[in-house]
Amino acid sequence: MSSDRPDTPLLDTIRRPADMKPLSDRQLTQLAQELRAETISAVSVTGGHLGAGLGVVELTVALHAVFDTPRDKVIWDVGHQCYPHKILTERRDRIRTLRMKDGLSGFTKRKESPYDPFGAAHSSTSISAALGFAVARDLGGVVPEGLGDAIAVIGDGSMSAGMAYEAMNNAGHLGKRLIVILNDNEMSIAPPTGAMSSYLSRLYAEEPFQDLKAAAKGAVSLLPEPFREGAKRAKDMLKGMAVGGTLFEELGFSYLGPIDGHEMDQLLPVLRTVKARATGPILIHVLTKKGKGYAPAETARDKGHATAKFDVLTGEQKKAPSNAPSYTRVFADSLLQEAAEDDKICAVTAAMPDGTGLNLFAERYPSRCFDVGIAEQHGVTFCAGLAAGGMKPFCAMYSTFLQRGYDQVVHDVAIQRLPVRFAIDRAGLVGADGATHAGSFDIAYLANLPDFVVMAAADEAELKHMVATAAAHDDGPIAFRFPRGEGQGVDMPERGEVLEIGKGRMIAQGARVALLSFGTRLAEVEKAAEALRARGLNPTIADARFAKPLDRDLVLQLAADHEALITIEEGAVGGFGSHVAQLLADEGVFDHGLKFRSMVLPDIFIDQASPADMYAVAGMNAAQIESKVLEVLGIAQIGEARA
Amino acid sequence: MSSDRPDTPLLDTIRRPADMKPLSDRQLTQLAQELRAETISAVSVTGGHLGAGLGVVELTVALHAVFDTPRDKVIWDVGHQCYPHKILTERRDRIRTLRMKDGLSGFTKRKESPYDPFGAAHSSTSISAALGFAVARDLGGVVPEGLGDAIAVIGDGSMSAGMAYEAMNNAGHLGKRLIVILNDNEMSIAPPTGAMSSYLSRLYAEEPFQDLKAAAKGAVSLLPEPFREGAKRAKDMLKGMAVGGTLFEELGFSYLGPIDGHEMDQLLPVLRTVKARATGPILIHVLTKKGKGYAPAETARDKGHATAKFDVLTGEQKKAPSNAPSYTRVFADSLLQEAAEDDKICAVTAAMPDGTGLNLFAERYPSRCFDVGIAEQHGVTFCAGLAAGGMKPFCAMYSTFLQRGYDQVVHDVAIQRLPVRFAIDRAGLVGADGATHAGSFDIAYLANLPDFVVMAAADEAELKHMVATAAAHDDGPIAFRFPRGEGQGVDMPERGEVLEIGKGRMIAQGARVALLSFGTRLAEVEKAAEALRARGLNPTIADARFAKPLDRDLVLQLAADHEALITIEEGAVGGFGSHVAQLLADEGVFDHGLKFRSMVLPDIFIDQASPADMYAVAGMNAAQIESKVLEVLGIAQIGEARA
Repeated sequence: MSSDRPDTPLLDTIRRPADMKPLSDRQLTQLAQELRAETISAVSVTGGHLGAGLGVVELTVALHAVFDTPRDKVIWDVGHQCYPHKILTERRDRIRTLRMKDGLSGFTKRKESPYDPFGAAHSSTSISAALGFAVARDLGGVVPEGLGDAIAVIGDGSMSAGMAYEAMNNAGHLGKRLIVILNDNEMSIAPPTGAMSSYLSRLYAEEPFQDLKAAAKGAVSLLPEPFREGAKRAKDMLKGMAVGGTLFEELGFSYLGPIDGHEMDQLLPVLRTVKARATGPILIHVLTKKGKGYAPAETARDKGHATAKFDVLTGEQKKAPSNAPSYTRVFADSLLQEAAEDDKICAVTAAMPDGTGLNLFAERYPSRCFDVGIAEQHGVTFCAGLAAGGMKPFCAMYSTFLQRGYDQVVHDVAIQRLPVRFAIDRAGLVGADGATHAGSFDIAYLANLPDFVVMAAADEAELKHMVATAAAHDDGPIAFRFPRGEGQGVDMPERGEVLEIGKGRMIAQGARVALLSFGTRLAEVEKAAEALRARGLNPTIADARFAKPLDRDLVLQLAADHEALITIEEGAVGGFGSHVAQLLADEGVFDHGLKFRSMVLPDIFIDQASPADMYAVAGMNAAQIESKVLEVLGIAQIGEARA
Repeated sequence: MSSDRPDTPLLDTIRRPADMKPLSDRQLTQLAQELRAETISAVSVTGGHLGAGLGVVELTVALHAVFDTPRDKVIWDVGHQCYPHKILTERRDRIRTLRMKDGLSGFTKRKESPYDPFGAAHSSTSISAALGFAVARDLGGVVPEGLGDAIAVIGDGSMSAGMAYEAMNNAGHLGKRLIVILNDNEMSIAPPTGAMSSYLSRLYAEEPFQDLKAAAKGAVSLLPEPFREGAKRAKDMLKGMAVGGTLFEELGFSYLGPIDGHEMDQLLPVLRTVKARATGPILIHVLTKKGKGYAPAETARDKGHATAKFDVLTGEQKKAPSNAPSYTRVFADSLLQEAAEDDKICAVTAAMPDGTGLNLFAERYPSRCFDVGIAEQHGVTFCAGLAAGGMKPFCAMYSTFLQRGYDQVVHDVAIQRLPVRFAIDRAGLVGADGATHAGSFDIAYLANLPDFVVMAAADEAELKHMVATAAAHDDGPIAFRFPRGEGQGVDMPERGEVLEIGKGRMIAQGARVALLSFGTRLAEVEKAAEALRARGLNPTIADARFAKPLDRDLVLQLAADHEALITIEEGAVGGFGSHVAQLLADEGVFDHGLKFRSMVLPDIFIDQASPADMYAVAGMNAAQIESKVLEVLGIAQIGEARA
């Protein structure tokens, strides 16, 4: 049966990398095969990132076989390729809990294991971190596992981020022993390249470095023109320079490669040579295939990048049927509708065309859609330039990734009051991706910027209105946030309506307590109100729509008309509720008493779990909102009454 | 006399660039001479950035002579080299108001002039912005001045930022006509290079580009080894690749240069040729000398980078005598003291060794001090890696520049709870540098991160304690902020004392109203209290020291014991006061009434002025604090009583 565990006799003997030391190279090759089967089997029951892990199975085995982890630090960039690594590093028994509550993280995580020396989830941080370890080692830093080699494994896509360039620039200057493995998984591996790689890797094992490089350069003439895919410039550049490694050498790195990342007889000798002989910073260029060894992944458009649970034999994914369109899709469709009538509308994403829905925009309006690569700093300022040039740019990024461009939001957009439209996806808690992807801070970090308009959609129809509002707003920056996942299933309007800036809306007029919601928690607020009505309490409900400018009249009226006012938002303290508190304080509302509470995300990073579980941890579900109301009004709750 | 205006007969005829069109090349050379004299004269009475402007006098004249500004967009990176540009673009009559209240900004600024198409002050944004203009032009963007060429002028130092790399990477991919001028002002111009440049620039004017590049490459063999200074890797790299322009060509740019940026007969033909013939992205490598043409600047260590008012003849600066050491100096000295006793302490700055005081650390402990270049993203994560490797890194950055590394603060430091120490200089209002340098947001953007400790120093002795506290704090990240400028002149302790985390201190026990200060506004609070005492009102004063964790006992006690509680901080809403409000709300303190106010920076970007004037605009001086107390307590003020 497809859900049976694969047969893994050799892998069964390996609990940690030290157990691999007695294995022969041939056995390591077998171990890699078993590791691949186990990875596929595990992800088939958990879902998650599959393609990236399959691409580095051999590399994972080779690294742990050659280096001495956890003393040597292997730092996986982004970290979504780390499932095979987790299986080899004392976590195989929990590998089928990946991305689940109380289970293993889908990324590397320091808390989880000493074999994860530096956690990740956002891209392009690995070289900086590895350099930190290398310098710490040379300065006599002390950590329980000891400090040996620092090895960053970074994908070609991650190399488009300026941060990676900054790190290499600094590493080349410092000249410390440091190993960067460029995991280039977009260039397919055809025989000639493979032959050259075999040739080179044999050479590496035999010759000192200075000769190796000359040999590598000599070998170039044997090769056909390297094949290019022409996709993104960053990748082109890497590929264009792959042979010879000019860029990396200019940055002060020794360059080795390219080698075939699925051939143990290339990986092992190269890594052994590097380990034995490296002095300064070295870049090893490894060619891999995303989804390698699992046909359904290899043939998929996204190479099995992220998957639901699936049937191992067929590769068929087991997805729950959806009831409503995703917020992402509603954003994308709404933007297309606006763009059809306004040729100044354009769109910018930072390597997330699918995740933000802009792939649809790119298909329809290719000349007006820009994927800048993993380059949020540039992306934001590029939008500012577009706006200064009379265009209407929508900058579509996830909440946590926009953090990468924060200074540009402040310095280039806000201070210049340029009408850049920020479409902030994945705002709030995100489920299985965990704390690194939770968009908790955007309300706070945007709403205190002068001249910014900050909106949150309460449902997918509201999102459509906010896209229209942003398109129409030409007097400064405007942002709207919306969560991951499906909408509420509300009726969708034919067209988005331009909202009045700074005006909220009343949902239900009640008494005693007013619940003022900002964003999609409104649905839970309504459920809570339903339950409260069953207790004879009829709360007022309002949707603020805007954290900035605040609807002062609405806030002050709610405060005046009610004994208690409770704000609810899916964000950390410092955001919507804090702005409401500031207004109430300024206006002297607290002087004579108001039962004011601000429900915000708690002051912890919440580990991955189902969204429902995460909201429970955050205290943001209907029952908890209900409890808060009862508590604030001093009404005994059932639990309390029993106690 | 040295303060007399220079004789500038030709410049006197130029009000805007269009007036330059009839001038001959020889006259343009004369115009540049006069422009240099006028720039020196103006800065001698205003102070400001001198060296950078003097380095681009000829380039400024040449750009405005060849291109059609403001239709063509010249975007000065950082913008501190723009004084000559301002003189030529309708602002000569106000050039002696530079950096003053209601005067000209010391940077480019959109509000100020259509000749400033994109403002700046932070580095490395110009290529992104220029690309935005270029794309907008090609998409039919509409702006009042029209859209012509987009020209970014960027220094070699600014090229170390990943953002510049991201932008070039994207520009090379898009292939739009775009001009980047690399203003390389660190390589001195010796005769051979100059000769080659002359040769090349004559060639440029005569030959089509494809031939030019071949010619340029041919000319390389005529040259001696390019001279390097060995300072920073980024600069070395640029210089190493200057001849031939490999890096830029790999990124999809045509490369021209290097040419002598002080020779009109090189600049003019090259720019004219580029204007006439460019199709895709082009990089022109221009060699200039910072401080050029003014001996006191040329011979200064910092090449006259930033200066006080000075005597034109002698170059002697007119600085007011200082009463107390600067906060920066206190930080630097305190860190040295800690580092002397703990060899795990190390320090990281992002191209601001002088500004952060780490130049002193670098002298004493060169192996433990790291200047990563303009690379805040990398700098923060590098610190995270150092901390993970058992070191105690101090990450010294200005408040606004730390915004560049915000995601790294969240993702690499906070989520992993790594003990990185953030020394945040220039927190709060900064005077003449204006809004772009005002550190207004750091309290808010740090204090809502779980597990962070956030401190602000009330005076320089407190700063010393906080450095000691940060050194001792090994259980997660910790930040301390301090302002630009001189301390209060308080007695300095021999050694910094390790403060109890999350505990504030009582300054004066009074009645009715409690003033809870966070940071250096404490001095004004004390002055306000003095004035209030003269009215018979004796306020309680406390220094919170910590915005996170809050001193709950102190806050709740102050609230319980007083009719009114007022917080004061030099930061935007969402920070300290918001955290206090959240606590008071959670604890039900507002339920029965409390006159709570939170004095924060106002919701505007405050233009440059003297610090005193800026505080007045912000409503944060002693008289305004006094007024706030009287208003909250309902005590008629003199002004009101008269009204």
